[in-house]
Amino acid sequence: MLLTRPGASHISRLRRLLSLQNIQQSRAMSVQQPTWTPPQRLREDPVLKVYNSLTKSKTEFVARDGRRVKWYNCGPTVYDASHMGHARNYVTQDILRRIMTDYFGYDVHLVMNVTDIDDKIIKRARQNHLLEKFQEETKSVSPELIARVHEAWRNHVRQQLRKGLLETDLPQEGDEDNAWPRLAELVQNKDWKQECIRRDEKFDMHFSSASQTLAALQVARAQLSNGQNSQEAAHKLIADSKDILSQALDDQYKSTVTDPAISRTLAAYWEGQFFNDMKRLRVREADTVTRVTEYVPEIVAFVEGIVKNGFGYESEGSVYFDTEAFDSSPQHDYAKLEPWSKGNRELLEDGEGALTQKSGRRAADFALWKASRPGEPSWPSPWGPGRPGWHIECSVMASAVLGDNMDIHSGGIDLAFPHHDNEMAQSEAYHGCGAWVNYFIHTGHLHIEGLKMSKSLKNFITIDEILQKYTARQLRLAFLTQLWSAKVDFTESMMTGEVRSLETTINNFFTNVSALLSQASADITKSDGYHHYEEPERELRTALYESQYAFRVALCDSFNTPAALGVIRDLITRTNVYITSRGKSVNVQLLENVARWNGKMLRMFGLGEGPAEELGWGADDASAGAINREEVLMPYIRSLSTFRDSVRRLAMGKGDTALQDILSLCDRLRDVDLVPLGVALDDQEDGKALVKLVPPAELIRAREEKRAQAEAKASKKVAVVEAERAKRAAKLEKGRVAPQEMFKPPNVPEGTYGSWNEDGIPLTDGEGKELSKNAGKKVLKDWAGQKKLHDEWLAYQKETSGA
Amino acid sequence: MLLTRPGASHISRLRRLLSLQNIQQSRAMSVQQPTWTPPQRLREDPVLKVYNSLTKSKTEFVARDGRRVKWYNCGPTVYDASHMGHARNYVTQDILRRIMTDYFGYDVHLVMNVTDIDDKIIKRARQNHLLEKFQEETKSVSPELIARVHEAWRNHVRQQLRKGLLETDLPQEGDEDNAWPRLAELVQNKDWKQECIRRDEKFDMHFSSASQTLAALQVARAQLSNGQNSQEAAHKLIADSKDILSQALDDQYKSTVTDPAISRTLAAYWEGQFFNDMKRLRVREADTVTRVTEYVPEIVAFVEGIVKNGFGYESEGSVYFDTEAFDSSPQHDYAKLEPWSKGNRELLEDGEGALTQKSGRRAADFALWKASRPGEPSWPSPWGPGRPGWHIECSVMASAVLGDNMDIHSGGIDLAFPHHDNEMAQSEAYHGCGAWVNYFIHTGHLHIEGLKMSKSLKNFITIDEILQKYTARQLRLAFLTQLWSAKVDFTESMMTGEVRSLETTINNFFTNVSALLSQASADITKSDGYHHYEEPERELRTALYESQYAFRVALCDSFNTPAALGVIRDLITRTNVYITSRGKSVNVQLLENVARWNGKMLRMFGLGEGPAEELGWGADDASAGAINREEVLMPYIRSLSTFRDSVRRLAMGKGDTALQDILSLCDRLRDVDLVPLGVALDDQEDGKALVKLVPPAELIRAREEKRAQAEAKASKKVAVVEAERAKRAAKLEKGRVAPQEMFKPPNVPEGTYGSWNEDGIPLTDGEGKELSKNAGKKVLKDWAGQKKLHDEWLAYQKETSGA
Repeated sequence: MLLTRPGASHISRLRRLLSLQNIQQSRAMSVQQPTWTPPQRLREDPVLKVYNSLTKSKTEFVARDGRRVKWYNCGPTVYDASHMGHARNYVTQDILRRIMTDYFGYDVHLVMNVTDIDDKIIKRARQNHLLEKFQEETKSVSPELIARVHEAWRNHVRQQLRKGLLETDLPQEGDEDNAWPRLAELVQNKDWKQECIRRDEKFDMHFSSASQTLAALQVARAQLSNGQNSQEAAHKLIADSKDILSQALDDQYKSTVTDPAISRTLAAYWEGQFFNDMKRLRVREADTVTRVTEYVPEIVAFVEGIVKNGFGYESEGSVYFDTEAFDSSPQHDYAKLEPWSKGNRELLEDGEGALTQKSGRRAADFALWKASRPGEPSWPSPWGPGRPGWHIECSVMASAVLGDNMDIHSGGIDLAFPHHDNEMAQSEAYHGCGAWVNYFIHTGHLHIEGLKMSKSLKNFITIDEILQKYTARQLRLAFLTQLWSAKVDFTESMMTGEVRSLETTINNFFTNVSALLSQASADITKSDGYHHYEEPERELRTALYESQYAFRVALCDSFNTPAALGVIRDLITRTNVYITSRGKSVNVQLLENVARWNGKMLRMFGLGEGPAEELGWGADDASAGAINREEVLMPYIRSLSTFRDSVRRLAMGKGDTALQDILSLCDRLRDVDLVPLGVALDDQEDGKALVKLVPPAELIRAREEKRAQAEAKASKKVAVVEAERAKRAAKLEKGRVAPQEMFKPPNVPEGTYGSWNEDGIPLTDGEGKELSKNAGKKVLKDWAGQKKLHDEWLAYQKETSGA
Repeated sequence: MLLTRPGASHISRLRRLLSLQNIQQSRAMSVQQPTWTPPQRLREDPVLKVYNSLTKSKTEFVARDGRRVKWYNCGPTVYDASHMGHARNYVTQDILRRIMTDYFGYDVHLVMNVTDIDDKIIKRARQNHLLEKFQEETKSVSPELIARVHEAWRNHVRQQLRKGLLETDLPQEGDEDNAWPRLAELVQNKDWKQECIRRDEKFDMHFSSASQTLAALQVARAQLSNGQNSQEAAHKLIADSKDILSQALDDQYKSTVTDPAISRTLAAYWEGQFFNDMKRLRVREADTVTRVTEYVPEIVAFVEGIVKNGFGYESEGSVYFDTEAFDSSPQHDYAKLEPWSKGNRELLEDGEGALTQKSGRRAADFALWKASRPGEPSWPSPWGPGRPGWHIECSVMASAVLGDNMDIHSGGIDLAFPHHDNEMAQSEAYHGCGAWVNYFIHTGHLHIEGLKMSKSLKNFITIDEILQKYTARQLRLAFLTQLWSAKVDFTESMMTGEVRSLETTINNFFTNVSALLSQASADITKSDGYHHYEEPERELRTALYESQYAFRVALCDSFNTPAALGVIRDLITRTNVYITSRGKSVNVQLLENVARWNGKMLRMFGLGEGPAEELGWGADDASAGAINREEVLMPYIRSLSTFRDSVRRLAMGKGDTALQDILSLCDRLRDVDLVPLGVALDDQEDGKALVKLVPPAELIRAREEKRAQAEAKASKKVAVVEAERAKRAAKLEKGRVAPQEMFKPPNVPEGTYGSWNEDGIPLTDGEGKELSKNAGKKVLKDWAGQKKLHDEWLAYQKETSGA
């Protein structure tokens, strides 16, 4: 409309408008706004400090580039089920990561490796493979089998108990059987055993294996002497001595295991299990997951780079890191995390792996590349076939994704030396830089009921086991109530006491606020006072403000989650007091403010999932959390559709019995299909079923009970019928003999009677004497009775013969 | 176990342990970690700057207390439906708030008022009330009614057109009828009309009301002279002249309206509507909502405080703010936002309200408290019954909740002067402080297709109307593509062009990435390369890093959302290029990283809802957001159950036609019940339907199309049948006359024939002459033909008589 060709009056109007604008503009020019001064800060925003293993102190966290945080976390070696130690480590790191991204708003890029090349994986896979093969080939208990196991047992006793036993207690070669009774007596002494465990933490495990195998050998010997040499018995012996036997088989046959798929398959399986466990614990997947088997060429190139820079050397097909050259270089420091552990033989050996034969120049030097012997997976390299050392993978994969510097490196405290120190040395040697990692954060150890978790102490708990006892939320709460860097003592009393009580407090709070809100919202536009702020409201508002500040202070203090949780707990207490004291005139909107902030922070810690709009801390169930329309609905709809299909088919078939079949379908839908979906259909008199959503487990239980009752009833009925049938059969059986024959042998003893009439009724006794009157009467009566029974029997015969 | 009473060996063990620890500790003491230097920053974290109306420039945002942000936003005056202007204002402020809380991590406390005491509310409520009463009391069209409306019309013409018309065009009192034809002619001239609208933006509206009422009066007069004086006709006259009549009634009877519920009810209704509209637009509710009617005692006290401090005075039962005293006080400045508007009479009058009679000392002084006249709601005060002025409410309620200082005050730019300037003056006068508001942010105007939105320009759009045309997501995208402080021109071409195209780009991106992810996850632990990072991956990773940085830079630049959206769009383009170029070796985890960040940022802007764990930007439907198992599932399950019930009933009934009915039920489930649930059942040859989840709208459309086709086909069939029926009827109709009568009058003209045989066959013509041979032949043939037709007719009669 404004773009039409302007007429004279239009132009004059525009002129007037323009001059008006000029006047306003010049007025704005001449009249200035008063000077504005930036607000005076009452309190500074607290600064994030992090306990940095590189300084063993809390240092201010400075991201290198804006809010970018490059972060590498040491991932799992995948050869067995994940346990509570993994849970503590990964859940805690997940909490730190969530705080960094969702609370502090950093742009975090988290990389985690999966170690799928490792001596433990190789050995476990090889042993599993060899034991399976041995078992397949073993068909019976034989003297050879027993000798084989006994030999393995003797080697085990001598070699595995060596570390734990004093020299004087260790059996001589060949004397293992004689020495055993004394050892078995000594081990009953608690102090003696503890001392052995102190020398070797695996002592108890090794001793148990030996005992178990010995017992199995005794059973097998007894069976053999009794001639019970079945394959089943043989397999039992193998199973009971599997720890000892698989080690013996590996010693003997390892070089024959050449298929690389054997260790890859094991690793892939446990990698899948690991991520599944993490998902159940609500640990977010790393942004980038790297797998060692995918990075071997990069590893070779990286090792070449280190050698080229003068910090590595080849020896017997392996490549070693030259710690001396590195440490004496002015630009570098070796073992920044634990310089006091340099040269600690025990720690270093542990890092090199069980299959390694060290050939480096110095004890402190460690393998970058290990020559593979037969039976060990290998990749080509300039130094011949081999595989990566343990530490090199992290240097290479972190560099491939994150480059020559990272803000944070994390891992369990037990990895600090040698793994992390070696990793840093390698990367700094390769990149030629002074600091590859800016902040190193180590999560603390986990103990169970005061003791280090170990299989030998029988306090080893897998993630799957713990999740059957506690929920993911409860476990996370337990870890949140502890400092991430501290040693956590995981105890039953903590879980059933502190943790459950905190969970209940929080749940009750959300339930109460929700109830008050829904009560108020029924009449929200009319309710006077709903919005009102008086002194109690201002006090609670200030409590909320102060809580938000204190919460930030806690998290800035090196992620002090116990303190932060304390802030929330105190605010809940404070709010509960407000609710009680304020009664009817409670400001529900203010309660909602408190509840929403609490919920947001608890969710931020990963304690719940689901739509952020919902009041509360979300669902405590990974599967319930991520509600996906397709996932949730499809089972219901498929069930409906299948039902409909069946009805349709029947109706189209028009068979005579179709209608009865439709009824069965209806029952099947109710009793079979909908039960696992948690839908109960209660049929009603009016033909419309009552539909209920019930936990599936409850429905299954009810169905099982009903089925058991029905079965009991049915079997009782069957018993009654059977009893009647038996009774009838017995009665019928009596009628098998025709009355004409009943008084003749063999139905009566030879010579009981002398002569009979045509109906077989006796006339004289065995001596030819006529029967007495009474006796005659009795035989007649018996004859008539038998006649009746026999007639029945005949009728039944006719009936059952199918005529 | 450790707590059992220690024996000697236990104690010696502890001793050994302790001395070991000492050795380790002293070693740690002597070997120091190398010096750690904090990382050198490559780029500083950008600093948030905000365009501050108090400086008319972008100034660094400094929160006064840690990360606490106290924020007050001017809320709605609730007397009518919310419109596009509200949508622009509140959606934009919601975006800013979400950025502050969810992106920058501030602890925001947002307070918003609801103005439910206001001259507009009072007047609207009173007029509605009086018009309803007048209508109820009016039973018929009468000369009195017509005179009453005519009188109102004359007053309207003289008074309401005054501002728009030049003095020379304005009718004299009593001359309105005579003057009208000339005005009606003048208004046809576009330039003349535009000029009037320039002088008074409501001119067109007032003129339209006058025309409409005049027309209605003419109709009513005609009806009266025709004796059509029904109540219906009277109510039509009242409805057509309601704008004019309700003003006249209000002028006459306003003082009789004393029930305070009348304006409260109106306000409560529109408040409910407002919050409902906001919810549909996904605008988060303020943390604290305050309603003026709940704060009157606080307002009285606040006004007393201002008077006590020497900045207010009473006049005729009202209290005014002393702008001169305030402005001349060394501590204070009046009109900090727009000092050049001081004394702007038009702006000031607008601020004082339609019902106000000004009695202050100076034109610049404004009402703090207004004496109420009869017909206006009132509350007790030291100055007699009255009600709050407009500006005071915000000062009081913001102070009640937030105290004597706030970080941010926001509102539409049209409120800057006098409302916000007066509000600040009042609060600073009361609290005795220099700066009550630290940052003032004003959202820009909204235009529609280049013009200011107004009822008179007929481009007035309510939120309800716009949501029928576009989704909440599309509207929000439209506002995001504009600077919050700029004038937005809302155009159809923008919505159907830029906005729809951006939405499609984003949707397609998420769909593609989801598909690639689900394809890959089928075999995730085995897929080599899935985790691999090479040069293309590092490039895309860097693009993601740079986008995250640029996004922050954009939002730090006074919330530059168009630039931030541009960053996301460019990253999507960049990622699409990567996908295409990388083909099968795409790193899907990296794609997921990009998609997750994009989704998180788009959700942060409020563009979608639902579980944050889900890939994508969430659901564009407030109700779909809060997924509740019961809510989501029950419709499906009920549908299933009802189906089952029906099948069951039929099968139990065992009627003959039962099986056919079952088929109909199956079709009904598919075509009727499941369509609105978004479930498509495609019947297949194997009897198992293919189940699909489809947007319900799509299914409904498909069903309507199918139905329309079927109807067209059916109506064509009906037409064919009808044509055949008509043809047959016509044919039958020919047979109505019996052959015996066909040659006799009236079936032939009198005197056509002279004599007939017993069958009615003519023997002679009208002149007594025997029929010619040919004529005789013809009548015989015709007779035979008619005989056949008549027999058919007789048969049809018999048939249709139901014999």
